Parts: sequence; C-alpha cells; structure tokens
Amino acid sequence: MELKDQAAITSGSAFWSTTAAGGVPAITLTDGPHGVRLQVAGADDILAGQPATCFPPAVASGSTWDPELLQRMGEALADECRSMGVHVLLGPGINLKRTPLGGRNFEYFSEDPLVAGVLATAWVRGLQSRGVGASLKHFAVNSQETDRMRVSADIDERTLRELYLRAFQRVVTEAQPWTVMCAYNKINGVYASQNHFLLTEVLRDEWGFEGLVMSDWGAVVDRVEAIRAGLDLTMPGPDDGGDQALIEAVSDGRLPADTLATSAARVQTLVSRAEATSPATYDTDAHHALAREIAGRGIVLLKNDGAILPLNPTQTIAVIGESARTPRYQGGGSSQITPTRLDNALAALEEAAPGQIRFTADPKEAEKLAREADVAIVFAATDFETEGSDRESLDLPAAEIALIEKVAVANPRTVVVLANGAVVRTTPWDSKVKGLLEGWLLGQAGGSAIADVLLGTVNPSGRLAETIPLKLADHPSYLDFPGEAGHVRYGEGIHVGYRGFDAREQEVAYPFGFGLSYTTFTYGQAHAIATDNGIDITLDVTNTGDRDGREVVQAYLSLPGSRVRRAPRELKAFANVEIPAGQTVPVKLHIDRPDLAYWEIRLNRWIIEPGEYAIAVGSSSRHLHTRVTVSLEGDGADARIPLATDSTIGEWLSDPRGAEVLGEVFAKMATEGSGGMAAAMTADPEMMQMAMSFPLDRMAMFPGSPFTPETLRGLADDANNAS
Amino acid sequence: MELKDQAAITSGSAFWSTTAAGGVPAITLTDGPHGVRLQVAGADDILAGQPATCFPPAVASGSTWDPELLQRMGEALADECRSMGVHVLLGPGINLKRTPLGGRNFEYFSEDPLVAGVLATAWVRGLQSRGVGASLKHFAVNSQETDRMRVSADIDERTLRELYLRAFQRVVTEAQPWTVMCAYNKINGVYASQNHFLLTEVLRDEWGFEGLVMSDWGAVVDRVEAIRAGLDLTMPGPDDGGDQALIEAVSDGRLPADTLATSAARVQTLVSRAEATSPATYDTDAHHALAREIAGRGIVLLKNDGAILPLNPTQTIAVIGESARTPRYQGGGSSQITPTRLDNALAALEEAAPGQIRFTADPKEAEKLAREADVAIVFAATDFETEGSDRESLDLPAAEIALIEKVAVANPRTVVVLANGAVVRTTPWDSKVKGLLEGWLLGQAGGSAIADVLLGTVNPSGRLAETIPLKLADHPSYLDFPGEAGHVRYGEGIHVGYRGFDAREQEVAYPFGFGLSYTTFTYGQAHAIATDNGIDITLDVTNTGDRDGREVVQAYLSLPGSRVRRAPRELKAFANVEIPAGQTVPVKLHIDRPDLAYWEIRLNRWIIEPGEYAIAVGSSSRHLHTRVTVSLEGDGADARIPLATDSTIGEWLSDPRGAEVLGEVFAKMATEGSGGMAAAMTADPEMMQMAMSFPLDRMAMFPGSPFTPETLRGLADDANNAS
Repeated sequence: MELKDQAAITSGSAFWSTTAAGGVPAITLTDGPHGVRLQVAGADDILAGQPATCFPPAVASGSTWDPELLQRMGEALADECRSMGVHVLLGPGINLKRTPLGGRNFEYFSEDPLVAGVLATAWVRGLQSRGVGASLKHFAVNSQETDRMRVSADIDERTLRELYLRAFQRVVTEAQPWTVMCAYNKINGVYASQNHFLLTEVLRDEWGFEGLVMSDWGAVVDRVEAIRAGLDLTMPGPDDGGDQALIEAVSDGRLPADTLATSAARVQTLVSRAEATSPATYDTDAHHALAREIAGRGIVLLKNDGAILPLNPTQTIAVIGESARTPRYQGGGSSQITPTRLDNALAALEEAAPGQIRFTADPKEAEKLAREADVAIVFAATDFETEGSDRESLDLPAAEIALIEKVAVANPRTVVVLANGAVVRTTPWDSKVKGLLEGWLLGQAGGSAIADVLLGTVNPSGRLAETIPLKLADHPSYLDFPGEAGHVRYGEGIHVGYRGFDAREQEVAYPFGFGLSYTTFTYGQAHAIATDNGIDITLDVTNTGDRDGREVVQAYLSLPGSRVRRAPRELKAFANVEIPAGQTVPVKLHIDRPDLAYWEIRLNRWIIEPGEYAIAVGSSSRHLHTRVTVSLEGDGADARIPLATDSTIGEWLSDPRGAEVLGEVFAKMATEGSGGMAAAMTADPEMMQMAMSFPLDRMAMFPGSPFTPETLRGLADDANNAS
Repeated sequence: MELKDQAAITSGSAFWSTTAAGGVPAITLTDGPHGVRLQVAGADDILAGQPATCFPPAVASGSTWDPELLQRMGEALADECRSMGVHVLLGPGINLKRTPLGGRNFEYFSEDPLVAGVLATAWVRGLQSRGVGASLKHFAVNSQETDRMRVSADIDERTLRELYLRAFQRVVTEAQPWTVMCAYNKINGVYASQNHFLLTEVLRDEWGFEGLVMSDWGAVVDRVEAIRAGLDLTMPGPDDGGDQALIEAVSDGRLPADTLATSAARVQTLVSRAEATSPATYDTDAHHALAREIAGRGIVLLKNDGAILPLNPTQTIAVIGESARTPRYQGGGSSQITPTRLDNALAALEEAAPGQIRFTADPKEAEKLAREADVAIVFAATDFETEGSDRESLDLPAAEIALIEKVAVANPRTVVVLANGAVVRTTPWDSKVKGLLEGWLLGQAGGSAIADVLLGTVNPSGRLAETIPLKLADHPSYLDFPGEAGHVRYGEGIHVGYRGFDAREQEVAYPFGFGLSYTTFTYGQAHAIATDNGIDITLDVTNTGDRDGREVVQAYLSLPGSRVRRAPRELKAFANVEIPAGQTVPVKLHIDRPDLAYWEIRLNRWIIEPGEYAIAVGSSSRHLHTRVTVSLEGDGADARIPLATDSTIGEWLSDPRGAEVLGEVFAKMATEGSGGMAAAMTADPEMMQMAMSFPLDRMAMFPGSPFTPETLRGLADDANNAS
C-alpha cells in the first residue's frame, strides 16, 4: 500500500467511520456500550442517535454479577449493530470505579477488577460471537472525568498491574476484542495515546493482543508519536495534517516505515473482519424483554426491615417522586441512546396493582398521600450524571432527602427506590425507612423491572459491585481525588474500594458484594484444593426460604504473612447460582492460577508466593460464612528475590542460603578477631538490630571491614547460584 | 590546597573527627541531639559515651511548644560540648513524624513543620550563640527506619515543599546552622547524599544556606556523585578509596576541580569557626535542674477526671510498675547518652510524700496494693525503641495493658503515667482510669519531673505535638507505611498527621495540640490584621482558675475555596504564655507571610493566593475557641496561572481575560455560522459541559474548527499579555 494510503486509513474520515483508501473500504464504528447509538444521518448533533434498545448501563448490568446475562446482552447488541450497519461497537467500558464521584461510573462495572473483567469478557464474547467487534475501553487508568484530557494518573506499577490493568488483561487474554480504545489521560506523565509501555509492551508483547488500538475521540496529541507507541487508528477524522506529518516522518526516517505499515495492516485486518459479517434484523420486543430481565437482575435490595417487600398488591400504595413517572434510566454523553420505547415504574405498578396506586410528583401532597396509604414508595434520583464531569457530592439532592424524610415521618412503612449512576450516601435517612432498593440507571425497561422487584415477580439478586460508604471522606480515594495542577496521585495504591475500607477497618453503609433477597440462604463448610490451574473450592448452599432465589457466592482470598502488603481480602471467584426454595445445591468456585499472583516490582513479573492461603466464602465482602485454607507451593525458585551486594543484612539473613554464606563470614571474623567495626557491630545484639537495615556493601565503608566490592560480588554469586 | 588534601579533608579521618591535611586541623563532631555523646577514648563501642547531661529527647522537648526553653537547652549543650572539646553537635533532628511507628520519632519534634521548625530554630540559635555548630538533620524525608539506607521516599513536590522541607527551610533561613546532615534514604529514587536538587538547588540556591553539608554516617554511596551534588563532607572515614576516586575524577575532567575545591573550602571554613571557640566548663547541677525543668514542661496531662491530679501527698499512693523505679528515659542508637545522674519517679515521690508511697513492680501484688491505697498510679512503658527499626505496633505491651486494667478495677482512682518515645494507643483502657499523664522519654531528670507534675509543684503545660489516633489503621500514613521493595509512597500527600485526620473527619483519641492544665483558661474574641509581613492576631486569654498556669495559644489557618486542595486547618502560629491565676493577658500571634504560601507546581514557586483566610484560635487543633477572617490580596498577577493552548476551555472561561478572548471567538462562530463541530459543541449546553474539560488545542482536531496552532498561540498571547 502506498504511504499516503497507509497514512489515510490510520485515521477516521468522519466522526463515525474509518477512511476508504488504497482499496480498503471504510467501516462504521459507533458508541455503546449499553446500546447502539448510530448517529441520525445528516444530523448536526453527533449524539442524536437512531432508535435502539437502551439496555441497562454497566452500573446496573455489573450489579447482576452474571456473565451469562452479559453474554446474552452482547449477542443482542451485535444483532442491533448488524441491523444498522455498525461494525464495531465502542465498548465495554471497564475502568475501575476508583471514586464514587466518577462522572462516568455509570458506564463502568465495578470497583473490583475481577467483577469488571469477568463480566466484560462475557459481553465481548457475546458481541463478537455474532460478528461485531468490541472496543475495550478506556485503556487505561481513566477513572475520573475531571481534567480527563490532560491529567496524569500518577500510579505505582504494582497498583497499575494488579488493579487498573487487571480487568483489561483478563478480557484481552480471554476474549481477544477486535479493538482496544486508548484513554484520554496521561499515565505517569505519558499520554495513553502515545504510551509505548501500555500500547505495545504490555498489551501486545505481554498479553498477546492481536487486534487494533484506536484512540478515544480526540485523544491523539501527536500522530507520529501515537503510531510509534502502537496506536493504529486515530479517531475521528479527517486528519489531513496528521496524515502529512506521518508521511514526512517516514520519509525523513524519524518513523520506521514498518511501524506505520503494521498499523495500516491492522486497519485492513479489522476492515476484513467487519466485511465478513452479514446484516441481520432483530426483534425489538424480545430485546426489550431482555433489557427488562437484566434490569431486574441488576436491582439491589439493600434494606427490607419487617419484610416490607415484596408489596402486597391488594394494599394501597403511595408512589411519590417524579422519577417514578419520568425515569432517569441512562447518563449523559457518548453512551446516550434513543430508546425504542421507555417504561416507567408508575405505569408498571398501576398495571400490576390496578386501583391501588396513589401517585404524586409534588412534594406538597406527598405527606398526605403517604399518611393515607398502606405503604409509601419514594422514588429519589440524583441530578443528571454525565461523561465529561465528575459529581461534586455523594449526597442525593437536598430536596430528595427532604422528601424521603418527610414521607418516612408520615408513614412508618416507607420504601425508597433510588435512581443513580453511582452510589450515593444513604445515611442518615436510610435508618428512617423500612425498605431500600438501589435502582441505578436501568435502561429503557427499568420502570417495569422496578415494579417486578417491588411486587416480587422477580426475587432480587443484584449485588453491590461498589461499596456504599458512610460518608465521602471515608473513601480510600478521598485525599487524592480529583487531583490538581494536572496530576492525580493514586495515593491509596492497591487499596481501591473495599480493599481500602477493609485495610483501614472502617465501617461502611453497605459493603461490596452485598444484596438481599426475598428468601434466605445458608452456607455449608467450604473445601478447597490446589491444582495446577489454581484453586477449586466446593461448598453447599441452601435456600432456606419458601421462594426460589439466586445467590451470588463470593470467595475472598488473603495471604497472612505475605512478603508484600496485601488487602485483607480480595475477591478471587464468584458464582451466580439459582436455588429453588428449600433446596441445597453444590457450588463450585474456581480461582485461576494467574489470579493468585502479585506484581513483584523487584523482578518485574507476576509472582505466586508459597504459603497458606486463607479463603473466606460468603454473600458479601463482610458477610463471610465459611473459611478454609489451602497450601500453595507458589513459584518456587522463580519467586526468590536474588541477593545483591546492596541487599540489607536483614535480607541476607532471612534468605536461607544468604544466611549460610554471610554466617560463615561473620563466624570467621569472630574467630580471627578481624573485621574491625563490622565485627564489633555484628557481635553486639543492640548494634545488630540497627545493622539489619544496612545494605551489606555499606559495611565496606567501615574501618577494618573485610568486604571489598569483589568479595561482596563473590558472596552474592555464591548465595544466588547455590539456591 | 593540593588536590589530594582537598580529597582528604572532605571525608572523616575516624568515626568522630574530620581529617587534618593541607594545614587544616581536624575537628570533633559527635552525636546529639539531646546530650553530648563523646565516645570514651579507646572504647571499642562507638556508642559508649562519656558522662553528659541527658536532656529530654525531642519527643518531650517538642511537647513544651516553648522556643525559649529550647534555646536555653541549646546554650547548655554548647557549654557541655566546649567542656569536652566537641565542635559540632549532631542535631537537631527535625524530620516529620509521618507515622507513630517511626523508630526514631523520639528524636524528632512533631508531625507539624511549624512546631518542628520554630523549636529547632531556637535550639540552633542557643547552641551556636555559644560557638558550637549544629548539624540540622536528616535532610530530607527520613521519616522511617525501615530500609532507611535504601528506601526511596516517593513524594510529590508540593508535599515535599510544604511539609517535609518546610521545617528545614525555616531553620536554615532563620538560624543558619553551621552544617546540615543529609539523610540515608533516597528521595524519588535519588540518594539524599547525591541529590543535587536538595543539596544545591533548594538548600543553597533557594534558601541561601552558607554552611557545610555532611553525610549521615555511612550515607555516601558514591563520593564523586556526592561532591557533585553538593555534599561537602563524607562521614565517617578514613575513605582512601573515595579520596582516590575524587582525585581521578578531577584529573580526568569528570568532576570540575572547582566543585571539589568549593567543598574543601567549606570544610576549612567550618574548621576555622570551630577553632575560634574557647573551652568552657559547666555546672552539672544547674544542667540537671534545666533538664528537670524541660522534662516537667514536656509532660502532657491527657486526662484528669474529677481532678484526681494533683495528688494529695497526705493520702496513701500505690506506685505500680518497674518504670517508676527504673526509668525509660531515652531511646536507643546514636543519641544514647551516659547521664551524669539519673532520677526516678519512685524516689522523687517518696521524698515529696514521705511514708505515703506503697511500691511494687510485681504485677502479682499490684491489685492488693491498689485496693488498699487512696490512689493508684500505674507506670507503663513501651518496649525499647531505637534508631534502626520502626515499631511494629501502636499498642503498649500486652502485659502493661493487663496491669493497667487490673489496677483500674481494684481502685477507681487510678492514674496512668506513660513512658514512650512515640504515641501509643490509649483505647480502650484510658476510659477505665481517671488520670493519664503522657510522660514520653524525659531524659535523666524525668523521674523528678513526673513527681513535680503529679504533685502539682509544676502545673502541666505540655501539648501534643502529634495526634494520638484511636487505632493505627486510622492514621493517614497507614496504607503506605513502611512501603515495600525499596519504595515508600507518601500517598497521603499534604495530609500528614492532624491534617489527614481533619480532612477525613475522623475521631481521634487526643488531638494535635491538646494538653490539660490544673487551671482553666478562657479565650476572648480574636482580631486579625494583614500587614506586609503577614498576619497579626491579638486576643485576650484569661486564667479562670486559682492556680498559675501556662497556655499554648494556637492559631490555625484555612482558605475556603482555595484553588488547590488544602488541609481543613494548618497550624500557622502559636504562643506559649504564662498567666497568673485569675489574670487576663493580651496574646499576640504573628503569622509570617511566607507561611501563608502554598507551593504551586505549575509555576514552580510559592504562591500566596488572594482570598478570605479563616483563622481559628484555640487550645488544640480541635478545641477552637475564637474565629476571625482576614482578607489578603495575595501575590496578585504573580499568582495567575498563564493560559496556554492546552489549557482547557473551562480554564479559559474561568480566567477573566481568557473568557473575554475566547468569548469573542465563540461569538464570531455563532454570528457567522462557522466553526463546524466546535461551534456545535459550544452552542449546546449539555455538550458544553462535556467540552469544559477539553484542552483548547484539542478542538483544533474537529472538522471545521476555526483553530490552527497559530491562531491558538495568538489567543494565548492575547489573554496573557493583556492581563
């Protein structure tokens, strides 16, 4: 292909399409992730979409903890794409919810990389199984909207690897998305769009990514540097200036011709894949029903005192709040869908409990209505949440809180239904109500789904994929969000979300993994065995109630005595199981061996430590019902940190072979009365305590020291080769 | 001076002396900081010192919050140095107490840089006023012992400047210590001993330091790199290999000859200063009395329910615990002094209340003794604390806690006296006792000082220079201490100590600045005026009790609406005032203008923001009795962040001139119907919200954009020049 064509096809030709050049046709890419937002042809507004099913945003689909459901959603989305001529759907979004204020949290799954990774893998598999490409985004560390085009996420590599890249790694290695989309922000000072470490070394060389990397829209600052880093496709376009810059950079040798050719070839491959897919049609009713099913499964029952729910449809029910009639069902920005239809909870309730519903959106009548009804339901919503800006407060709007408190006084049998894209503070008002339903943003069928759960047609099984803190200042991210002056420090390190709350022994309002059901479950004793592939856990779970239900069985891992700091527990496996009333089912949980590893910065690799791993299984991160330990050999000799001349005396002595080698030297000094200062230090226990943190080579500075650079290297070789 | 002599005199010749060469004699340097530890001549043990007054370690002297007292201590230390032929005393230590577990916290003053800086300045002035040089240490960010020789303190520049360097800056600019001692650790990956940024750019170029920089003992890894960075004197020595390396580096041009010559000249200057000082003698009794006075002033009364203290010497008093008889009065390591004498609290109490004291060190008799006495006093101590290792727990030893709880049950009138080098957890046992005296490590006269306070001879006036948390996991440093794999992330940023507890709205056991008295004080309304030199605050404070007392009046500052994240309040001034019973005294507090500044990383300088500063004055960081605001103009145009082509649209619009310039462009686009995408975005409020975080130059990528690199630069010039 000619150079100019290579340059041309590595950027878009318009907002939503690639460039046709050099015999390569253009394909269409458009936003997701919870629906297909194909711009109305000729519309000025780039966000004006043709009608499509608005499935629940990730905040709700993530709360299902059910990959099977996500896979079906992916399949359905693919069919809609094919019906509209869309080849690549821009999703899923899997950035971690580092802070509850993240303006785009509603598009992301979880504060935990396992939940995000497992669900996104299923979504990508579903989508791609029907011939439509995914675009895994936003790669990487794009966990805030504030200054998102510029801010540098300053983060240490262990945190980067174990938390912020971990879900990406899973999806790439398990589902091979056709494309990955780079983020806007910088990572440790380098734009994601020109980050060779991320886009090439990690993504391709380590993870074996075979697809194409595209930019987020407007993320490329320097086209030549982007191509050099491994970014293949710059969006949107046209970008004549960038094309020209590429041609010049190749011509004058600044950019290897191969590098551009490789990116152009990746565009060609993507286009070929897209062309192999045939058009399709879809059944809007069936998709609406699927949207309703997912929404019902994503709703989380947080509180149900006195079994106030499910509602008795023969009682009078006061329904209060505009969002019962006018649902908040998605967030603003690129993911905004024009729905094929739109359910609301009020209509759904009226249909299910004819004649029993008393509705008002006007706070003035709320009190009277509540007082006169058997039960009162307040629908409370956050203000508009959107891409582009983070939330300023964890609280519901003051008027919503006032409404809840007023109704709760008027009727002791009050239930709150929330509509929000990310968690809100529930204290202190939640103590005044009997029931609390976390309704997130549920997509176009959310209204019906809420009615399904309120009335018990659906037994709630959603689980929190993010912690609800008692107050914002408690959050691990609090001190360092949103950063300032172009930098945000990921100061809490690996302690993201529940990991931080657990590490600091903090109370929370509702813990990660939590959600009630209309039935109850008990857990039998867990058993665990280590295999070559990881750890297999088995246990029995019993539905002890009189209603069929679903339980999300969660396994958390810890390693007491680890040589690195670890969170007190980390989710390592979960299973979403349907259990008929009164039945016991055997549950199997599998922890993949790679998920046992931590990132060892001294060796620049993943390491599985040997040791006694503690596993706790339960229904949330703080409702752990059964425990078991399992012994792992770990990575053996590979896990050893080699001794060096600047390893401390403490490190030498805690390494079996190091202790042997150094012990001989110390013994010789003692016998011979040689060694001067060094000998004196090692002979005195108090001085020895001080000396433990001395790098061995620093002792060479002491008068009379037996060490020279050569003898030190000899000792290190001896200690390392023999071990 | 010949090259070889320059090389020779820039390292030591032995553990405690410089090298005599090229006509420059050697001088003696020895540890401090709370006493003169001159090694016994010929002793093998480098820590075996000749007798000298063991003044209270910094943990106690820092709790006096009294610079006048510290100045007298410095003067006394100088006299002891001169009597022993010591020219430079290695102190004061002013590293921030980042964590309560810091193994060397007992040698440091505070978690707050103002307290540390003000007290150390007075100490240095006192010492140097008598012709003995100080060595301000450990420069810098040496706030832990774990891996101290190697660990990299990974810290952002604002935190570095505002917290960890701030006390150093004050002492250097106000007291010009003869020497500064570099730390062992790395700062952002670069050893302090070869850190040109710290040792030259900051210390000399910015702060105007005129003295010599020496290494901590064994801190130099590469002699050539150290000299190049601005480290003048490597200790200890001899270091023939290093001398040779310097000579070679100068000879082959790798190291400029001037650089080495400058360091050698600084050694010469130091020696000349030292030689100008004459010998002296000192009065051991007077120094012991001074040590007792400082110790008494450093004790902090934390709890005194029912005015159980001061003791009534006619009652029977059970004294329980070995540390009443065998005091823990200093920590281990380089600061360890051989005292001229050693008081213990038991003997002092027996002398003051003859016949009334019943003593036991044996837990077995404690219960009986306590039950039979009118009041019980438990002396509880931490285990040995030492340089070289950090503490592993915030708790007192389990046996001490058990003893306290047992005695408290036996006698409801129980008082606890603590001996500890850094704060310990006081919950839950402190709720079971009536009185709690924080006795720190008090030096050789601490035993008498404790009796002075218990009996009311001294009215306690010590104040916490560090927060006592409810539990370790609450501490701002908790998630990132002590780091791992050679790195410790200062993840809490500027939120060190009380700044972090306040930011996260956490309860604490006893807040920073807290301490009770046997009398009571009330505060009048504070008034504040801004001057060219800062802010002057005046208020009346009244001693409302019937006993003379001292109050430490503290002024905390905040700036609501600041453009950078700030701690909710920062100590900016304090006054230690003696107030006779029933009297009112006018108190003046002065905030230095430089202390109003924050470090602006975008401008690489200190900035005083304009605004309404809120001042709260009180007796602790959480006992604030009077508030006042003061309006400051700040640094005016100098404080403005210039607009750039990659400033966001939000930044452009929030800058008055930027809004004007950009507004004209937008208006033109609207009028002309030009601007394509950019115009469409700016016309739609919802899109505009998303666009606020767009760097202006990124809009140039949109089709139809009116911006080119040239027009953008023109807009920025226009906005900046006109403002």
